[in-house]
Amino acid sequence: MRRFLGMEMLELIRSLPNQIEEALQYELPLLEMPKRIFICGMGGSAIAGDITKTLAKNSKIAIEVVRDYSLPSYATKGDLLIASSYSGDTEETISAFEDGKSKNLTLLAISSGGKLENLAQKYEVPHIKIPQGYPPRTALGYLLTPIVKVLKNLGIIDDKTFEDYIKLPKFLQSLQEEFEKENSLAIELASKYYRRIPVIYTSTALYPVALRWKAQINENSKAFCHTMEFPEMNHNEINGIKNPAGRCEDLWVTFLQDEEDHPRVKLRFEITKELIENSIQGYSIIESKGSNWVHRIFYLIYLGDYVSLYLAKFYKEDPIAIPRISELKRRLSQ
Amino acid sequence: MRRFLGMEMLELIRSLPNQIEEALQYELPLLEMPKRIFICGMGGSAIAGDITKTLAKNSKIAIEVVRDYSLPSYATKGDLLIASSYSGDTEETISAFEDGKSKNLTLLAISSGGKLENLAQKYEVPHIKIPQGYPPRTALGYLLTPIVKVLKNLGIIDDKTFEDYIKLPKFLQSLQEEFEKENSLAIELASKYYRRIPVIYTSTALYPVALRWKAQINENSKAFCHTMEFPEMNHNEINGIKNPAGRCEDLWVTFLQDEEDHPRVKLRFEITKELIENSIQGYSIIESKGSNWVHRIFYLIYLGDYVSLYLAKFYKEDPIAIPRISELKRRLSQ
Repeated sequence: MRRFLGMEMLELIRSLPNQIEEALQYELPLLEMPKRIFICGMGGSAIAGDITKTLAKNSKIAIEVVRDYSLPSYATKGDLLIASSYSGDTEETISAFEDGKSKNLTLLAISSGGKLENLAQKYEVPHIKIPQGYPPRTALGYLLTPIVKVLKNLGIIDDKTFEDYIKLPKFLQSLQEEFEKENSLAIELASKYYRRIPVIYTSTALYPVALRWKAQINENSKAFCHTMEFPEMNHNEINGIKNPAGRCEDLWVTFLQDEEDHPRVKLRFEITKELIENSIQGYSIIESKGSNWVHRIFYLIYLGDYVSLYLAKFYKEDPIAIPRISELKRRLSQ
Repeated sequence: MRRFLGMEMLELIRSLPNQIEEALQYELPLLEMPKRIFICGMGGSAIAGDITKTLAKNSKIAIEVVRDYSLPSYATKGDLLIASSYSGDTEETISAFEDGKSKNLTLLAISSGGKLENLAQKYEVPHIKIPQGYPPRTALGYLLTPIVKVLKNLGIIDDKTFEDYIKLPKFLQSLQEEFEKENSLAIELASKYYRRIPVIYTSTALYPVALRWKAQINENSKAFCHTMEFPEMNHNEINGIKNPAGRCEDLWVTFLQDEEDHPRVKLRFEITKELIENSIQGYSIIESKGSNWVHRIFYLIYLGDYVSLYLAKFYKEDPIAIPRISELKRRLSQ
């Protein structure tokens, strides 16, 4: 397996708790309470925004993740734009940041350097500098923690959630042992996905976890993955898990569940698996574990990270290499 | 083919322009300018919300589509909740409507009857009654037009967009001829999708169109369908269109494009098809047609409606029947 920064993907996955501990020490700017928050980013730098939304599910102000070149038309002065680009050179994020500048939003930038750092200096807005050299999807702790802390300081993330977040590194370390042991749940799931198309279902609240699984499977395992959220899945996709029969019979469906899922969503999971099980290869039901919402979300996220690593091994893919993204960037810059 | 209300699916698809003309005549309540709009609905009743967002892309207030049992935590007095449930009995929408009531939002309800109509009467809030007897996905004109008109009266949808919307029925009628002729683009696409898994890519702005295609293919054709938006696709999924090789080589990718797509997104489409074409069965590039944004969106939506109908024929599926949704509802009500 190719080494990156002297680390293999397994070591990069293992670095998540340390990243969180390290990033919890950052000195952060004090901001005024915004009317709304836009978190702008792409790929591995954007998922931190989705997870933030999930952690701040009791927020009294709207948090929107923007994965595009510009902000929505209603973005305005008084709103906060957090630009998150691991490299600092993501063209969509730079463009959205400039859009935010021209619309007089309050700006905050997070990157390991790049143009975004330079722009932040130029506009004299706070820039949070995170360590260089990681593939963005393996820098989740560095990308997410500063946002969580900024939102905690604003009172948007509550004290209890933040206390649970501080205890997250220890919890993640205990999961490493669990997911790395022989015949772990992560290996079992990867073996189910091997040579099949994985389909990941969650509640709306947990959907960021499904997006993380999909992106990790796409990037680490170089494998196709389909996701959808409940209850919406019951209003259309449930009919579509049929044709073409030969392809659908080959899908492996995973229901990622949490004890706080709406009781009707839980019931919908139950009935759905009965209604589709004859049309698919099989399904897995994964219940989150942990003593609180933050830990339960990260139980599932971390499980997905390990699943994607094992699936890469089954496909004999280098989990670090992303040749198509590199080639795409090369051609875009011509 | 089973008949519904005396109409086959083709006739139901053909009824869209008439629905719009009819619904443009509705008398609608005058509302005060809200701080934010939540459009709550599921499946065929929710897509009207997504299309509204696309039509109101210059809106100075946020419009959010909620497909869940409750509103986000930041929903508050001064916000408008539009509950859209074709039957009026969608449990998620009823629940979100009650949530809006308890949080003192301004309420507006759209349905053909059901509990939602009764609740609107009970709470003395405006209810827009639309004709009964259609499968919700075939009632898009009735579901969308009142929202467009309410937002036009508030100034959230601009005059030019509304004028283009008024001209939409005539444009759709001209498309019927085009999509129903022998060897039409709709038939060609359906034949590409037959026995393969269709993958639909669009820009972020056009993503509601992709969601409509997916839902129509799921419900009418009983077929699996995968969608994703650009530029985010370039940051993860582009790597995943590889494994399992035997399955990915069987995907048919469709790029739905519009002249207003960001130039970099257009370039991303170009490069992406080159990078993935050896891993997939093939691709189609579909450019929207029409003299304005509203018509161009509906060119693509209507094309997808016809594609799903032809694909249903290829699979010998009754495009009207949705046995799994019916069975799910039966079991949920036990």
